[in-house]
Amino acid sequence: MRLVILGGVAAGTKAASRARRLDPELEITVYQEEPEPSISECGLPYLLSGVVGARENLIARTPEKFAEKDIEVLVRHRVESVDVASKTLSVRDLSTGEAFDDTYERLIIATGARAVLPPIPGADLDGVFKLRFLTDTDEIGRYIEERSPGKATIVGGGYIGLEVAENLCALGMKVSLIEGEDRVALAYGPEVSENVEAELEANDVGVYTGEKVAEFTGEGHVRSVRFGDQELDTDLVIVGVGVSPNVELAAEAGMEIGPTGAILVDRNMRTSIPDVWAAGDCVETTNLVSGRTAWVPLGDTANQMGRVAGTNAATGEETLEFPGVLGTGIFKVFDLNVGKTGLSEKEAEEAGFEVVSAGSWAHDRAGYYPGAQRVFLKLIADRATGRLLGAEASGSSTDKLIDICATALWGRLSYPDLVNIDLAYAPPYGPALSPVIQVATILSGKFDRAREGVRATE
Amino acid sequence: MRLVILGGVAAGTKAASRARRLDPELEITVYQEEPEPSISECGLPYLLSGVVGARENLIARTPEKFAEKDIEVLVRHRVESVDVASKTLSVRDLSTGEAFDDTYERLIIATGARAVLPPIPGADLDGVFKLRFLTDTDEIGRYIEERSPGKATIVGGGYIGLEVAENLCALGMKVSLIEGEDRVALAYGPEVSENVEAELEANDVGVYTGEKVAEFTGEGHVRSVRFGDQELDTDLVIVGVGVSPNVELAAEAGMEIGPTGAILVDRNMRTSIPDVWAAGDCVETTNLVSGRTAWVPLGDTANQMGRVAGTNAATGEETLEFPGVLGTGIFKVFDLNVGKTGLSEKEAEEAGFEVVSAGSWAHDRAGYYPGAQRVFLKLIADRATGRLLGAEASGSSTDKLIDICATALWGRLSYPDLVNIDLAYAPPYGPALSPVIQVATILSGKFDRAREGVRATE
Repeated sequence: MRLVILGGVAAGTKAASRARRLDPELEITVYQEEPEPSISECGLPYLLSGVVGARENLIARTPEKFAEKDIEVLVRHRVESVDVASKTLSVRDLSTGEAFDDTYERLIIATGARAVLPPIPGADLDGVFKLRFLTDTDEIGRYIEERSPGKATIVGGGYIGLEVAENLCALGMKVSLIEGEDRVALAYGPEVSENVEAELEANDVGVYTGEKVAEFTGEGHVRSVRFGDQELDTDLVIVGVGVSPNVELAAEAGMEIGPTGAILVDRNMRTSIPDVWAAGDCVETTNLVSGRTAWVPLGDTANQMGRVAGTNAATGEETLEFPGVLGTGIFKVFDLNVGKTGLSEKEAEEAGFEVVSAGSWAHDRAGYYPGAQRVFLKLIADRATGRLLGAEASGSSTDKLIDICATALWGRLSYPDLVNIDLAYAPPYGPALSPVIQVATILSGKFDRAREGVRATE
Repeated sequence: MRLVILGGVAAGTKAASRARRLDPELEITVYQEEPEPSISECGLPYLLSGVVGARENLIARTPEKFAEKDIEVLVRHRVESVDVASKTLSVRDLSTGEAFDDTYERLIIATGARAVLPPIPGADLDGVFKLRFLTDTDEIGRYIEERSPGKATIVGGGYIGLEVAENLCALGMKVSLIEGEDRVALAYGPEVSENVEAELEANDVGVYTGEKVAEFTGEGHVRSVRFGDQELDTDLVIVGVGVSPNVELAAEAGMEIGPTGAILVDRNMRTSIPDVWAAGDCVETTNLVSGRTAWVPLGDTANQMGRVAGTNAATGEETLEFPGVLGTGIFKVFDLNVGKTGLSEKEAEEAGFEVVSAGSWAHDRAGYYPGAQRVFLKLIADRATGRLLGAEASGSSTDKLIDICATALWGRLSYPDLVNIDLAYAPPYGPALSPVIQVATILSGKFDRAREGVRATE
């Protein structure tokens, strides 16, 4: 049995490893355009600043390591078309330029996503970059080394832009960040956005919200960025305004594309074409809170999807299911930790819920224990049932609070569960009642008052 | 309506505050023997070493603060008997020695627990202490100041003994720890016990397991401790071998005592006597994993129970329920963080489950991100259903992992949920797949192999 996988990184290599473990007889080939098959893309911003010391640290496994497991990894190979009727592939070796055909019996599409570069005049100038692959970091690194840019501009106030802002500041650059909407971190509520903007400003990042970039100017190299009636000198621009799924190959081969524009798969990660599975940033899935289709391109999810696709492709059966995601995410910007799970208040309303929410600051350990810091936590619940719909946090211990809430969402818990839940307490780890319990208790009070309000008007 | 509460600290003062919030008309009196009504007992070990700077830091609220909310707090008052037929109390003012009667319409018992001092010869020598109340810490502090003990002995390898060991080492003492059973941290599996013992030894604590203390010797002051055929010089002894619930007053008043020896209450925190509720370390509850009665005297649980008792006593109705506990706990010993939730493997077997467990070391952040440390996590699941029964961890990020697992237990999740769960990932916060997901995946493999074993023999 011959399994071919298109794309490496998280989903593809995970699928390959998993398939190999389940079936030692399987013939496995992975094709990938990028030169490294298994890298940690989430670490790229930290490679820029040297927080992560060497690029080798981000390469989880080399083709040689895969060869030891009898997995053939062909990097710098582009699959140019797939014929699902004859189960053949046209492949081009990018090193030699030569084309050849290959065949598969089972196929996994893990072609990932690419950074979007909006059509801004001057975006083709030297010094204007996106940040998606290790090769991007290599190019940015070379540019920084050659030209020692003193001023940098980030376009986009999502998590990539924010992570990059921190890492360019660490290199001593004066950083400006331009966001088209009226606040950064749009996936969050306004309280968290405010905390993020305050953290940026405290670290001397110039924040320009509600501004669309009109033009990059310069001769050869970028020298300035224009927006509104302003113009900022800049020696380096990094654009992080989003990503889009790489679906062209799959679409041309006849695979169904879903409403989000990513490849449609079922819970077994099967595409609409027999013997073809797909996983990772190129597929859509279900948001388990809203029940709606969602496209959430993240490394950990890609990894989990890859496990399911690799398993089912190896067995040819419906062995494992990938149920969906919660929309959990986290990022660090300077000393602020920012995370969410489930739906923001706005997302919940868009999904048709009437919401009750509560937010509060709390300490991350007993107030008297040295080093106690603050965290803002907001919980969002369904007015009709009390069920938790989402949580977001910024400050200290965010990762813990968001993971508690993500697990609560997975178990479809309601606010009374979170009031009584038995979490771990000792002074070095939290206040006697976890911030989750504290905010759930505030939420509980809002539900009580809402009920009393109903009673009063009855 | 007059509400009387016996006992302050966590449950009693929480109940008082909650009752006041719900009913501004209620007459509320709290009686307590100890001089401070609302203190954080969990912080006491850290007061010894000065990690917590001043005893005032541990006093959450003074009687004056309660008076502002129109809650009368009478400290240094002992309630000597309760007559539930006439709803009267006999009270003694310990400052003046005078006795008086009081009446109640509703009563909350929150008399807490006391440290057990085993009948070891010499336990009455100066320098042999238990550690339960702020007054104990005061006495130990005075003793340390007067006599500058160079060698200290801890009796008991539970979390209090371990926390005290760290804090006495911080004062420069040579510390020995004696545990009667064959390993410390008995509530955990052997892997965690080993990690704790290694941490103690790395910090130059002498660890003696499987040893019962035969005698403390000395003239006036303790000078040595004898066990087996050994004798250790010691200038200070702290005994932390457990606590027992203060139920005498309730038992004499006719309240039913449960199988654990603590006061029996229902989910509304009602005792067997009308108009009497009870909460905190003096009551038993249900372990929601085993479904069995459990007595778990911990500050956070006491706080949550106090909220329920105070609410229901204020309304006189079944307004809130306290469903039970998971048995979640955490402690710090030097640089090791040790926590658990649910049942250990041994506890699960005793509760009648056939278990499948998996344990592994993992990193607490992306391996390439600076400062990555290790954590050992063990998951315990029910062989019949796959349901998670417990988790324990030692190392870094223990609090996060245990809280994730506690939430999973609260939601009655099974191992496949934990394989697919959408937790928060970014390089500063964890490896791409959380240790919880990693260990659940190992567990999943064990279940698969067990099933294949079944199939192979079919």
